Amino acid sequence: MPIRIVVDAMGGDYAPAEIIKGSVRALKEFKDTVIIFVGDEAKINPLLEAEDCEQNIEIVHTDQFIAMDESPKEGVKTKQKASINLAMQILNENEADALVSAGNTGAIVLSAAKHLSMIQGIERSGLATIYPTAKIHPSNHGFSLMIDVGATLHCTPKQLVHFAYMGSYYLSHILEIPHPRVALLNIGSEETKGGETLTKAYRYLKDAPGINFVGNIEGNDVPRGMVDVVVTEGFVGNIVLKTLEGASDVLRVAGRYAFKKRLIWKVGLALLSSGVKQLKKRTDYSEYGGAPVLGFKKLVIKAHGRSNAKAFFNALSVARRSVIEGVVEHIGESVQKFNQQHRIDFLEI
Amino acid sequence: MPIRIVVDAMGGDYAPAEIIKGSVRALKEFKDTVIIFVGDEAKINPLLEAEDCEQNIEIVHTDQFIAMDESPKEGVKTKQKASINLAMQILNENEADALVSAGNTGAIVLSAAKHLSMIQGIERSGLATIYPTAKIHPSNHGFSLMIDVGATLHCTPKQLVHFAYMGSYYLSHILEIPHPRVALLNIGSEETKGGETLTKAYRYLKDAPGINFVGNIEGNDVPRGMVDVVVTEGFVGNIVLKTLEGASDVLRVAGRYAFKKRLIWKVGLALLSSGVKQLKKRTDYSEYGGAPVLGFKKLVIKAHGRSNAKAFFNALSVARRSVIEGVVEHIGESVQKFNQQHRIDFLEI
Repeated sequence: MPIRIVVDAMGGDYAPAEIIKGSVRALKEFKDTVIIFVGDEAKINPLLEAEDCEQNIEIVHTDQFIAMDESPKEGVKTKQKASINLAMQILNENEADALVSAGNTGAIVLSAAKHLSMIQGIERSGLATIYPTAKIHPSNHGFSLMIDVGATLHCTPKQLVHFAYMGSYYLSHILEIPHPRVALLNIGSEETKGGETLTKAYRYLKDAPGINFVGNIEGNDVPRGMVDVVVTEGFVGNIVLKTLEGASDVLRVAGRYAFKKRLIWKVGLALLSSGVKQLKKRTDYSEYGGAPVLGFKKLVIKAHGRSNAKAFFNALSVARRSVIEGVVEHIGESVQKFNQQHRIDFLEI
Repeated sequence: MPIRIVVDAMGGDYAPAEIIKGSVRALKEFKDTVIIFVGDEAKINPLLEAEDCEQNIEIVHTDQFIAMDESPKEGVKTKQKASINLAMQILNENEADALVSAGNTGAIVLSAAKHLSMIQGIERSGLATIYPTAKIHPSNHGFSLMIDVGATLHCTPKQLVHFAYMGSYYLSHILEIPHPRVALLNIGSEETKGGETLTKAYRYLKDAPGINFVGNIEGNDVPRGMVDVVVTEGFVGNIVLKTLEGASDVLRVAGRYAFKKRLIWKVGLALLSSGVKQLKKRTDYSEYGGAPVLGFKKLVIKAHGRSNAKAFFNALSVARRSVIEGVVEHIGESVQKFNQQHRIDFLEI
């Protein structure tokens, strides 16, 4: 049976052109894969014709879509036929195995919550992101995964443990990191730090089967890549992730600005430019195949808003691989085992 | 009447030698200032003799102190005669106007909470930090203040507004920034983002007299220095601040590491080295005079743990200035006005 991936053809800064290009590359490379494009036929068809690609393609037409700068809440609610909403419906009706969109992140998360069923035993979805880290020690892979970065602002201890399972299984299956090291993001390393929710989550994680829990880490360990999976509530994860993005922008710009003041620095900068490009490539989000929205019975991949064809192809490869590996099923099984182990703690009495 | 500053002579990585040196410099520069050293006389006296300084000095002897890596909770509780505890008692008994310590941050915050009275109308203390930012636009000062970074992990809307007052008055009086731009750290710019506490704080801040509130900012605006005062709960502030520190470390190390691979890059790096030093100087925490612990009737300044004499001198200058300017009194007056304005909202019924 072919793997069926539904693609939001209208989402992303370079949609639909780069989305179609990346998808066609995937179709040519993966003969086992069918792509269902949701979007404006009048725009999609000429692009497909130009790429000379006909096989394993289905198109579901709609002329509605949610723009990148549109209010996600309003868009998801009022535009029922928006490409992301239609794509989610197709996914939920079991007509596809996974979904990829480079569109409005908020709209993807909200539309998933509106249309998809959760994995049994999981209460809240987690948006994970893979971010570049230092690669100084051999144990650093050069990237880590953070979950949640904005789907669930505040969490219970149980939900944080579920995030640990989601992130851990995703990394081990998709990026082939065996036994990923998992940590809670906190304000200190001691078990008793950070308030009740975090201390409870710490206790659960210590004994959670299948989780390689290494304790708490502090903010400075996030960019250092001290662990593979950083678990945190969405409010904190979102702010930390954006702080990291802002810091790397600022240091680049500030350096360039400062170094242009003197000729000798200008020369130095010029000599370094190819090195800077290499460093920049390592911190290129398109390399990591997008951010998974986890916790639903179907996998959703949010590709970067600025995705070009290559980045979108990577996101599709990840989606396909997650279906083949059964990532969602593995997460479900392990979460159910964990919930069962703690069924008395979780009784709501 | 002289300004009396109590100094924890035993706190900091280079205590007591650099602490005494920095203090002596302050005594020589500020003839209106008396310093009360709390610590081990046997260590302090020879250092003072070497500096040839006798005037405006008092010493309160103790041989207990809380080490930099000691548990703050245990230390503050069990070592009643620890230098920081004694110094706080002296401050609380009105024998001094301000306190400066380069010691264990947690111990300073806890000892302050244990020994000092809050400003009337303020419920929780805030630890503020001044951090370097981009200085690209003329409206950037090259630094911003974040409050709270770890004194109060979770806050009510009212407490967040109080932090805004603390940070705003501190910046305007100590760093001479008129009408500092104040923002809430959030996951989006809209007023309705981030949950009930933040939306309520947003509503209060819009109309708060004396506060130049510019709305919400996201994580990426923190290192960009888009505003002068970033208001957030201590849990988030602590993690964001440490993430920033970690990111700047990582980028420096990663750059150096990567750039040493090829000869041409090595040469480029060598040409840039003086520029890198200048950039580093701008991000040198010792320039900003330490982190104030605000909300108490007396001002406490936490100097950086790695303070040398110059950094400690800067922290003392800031403490002295805050007494002269009446920063604590100004914060008190404005908070009381704000509380009065919202007295119906804040009735606990």
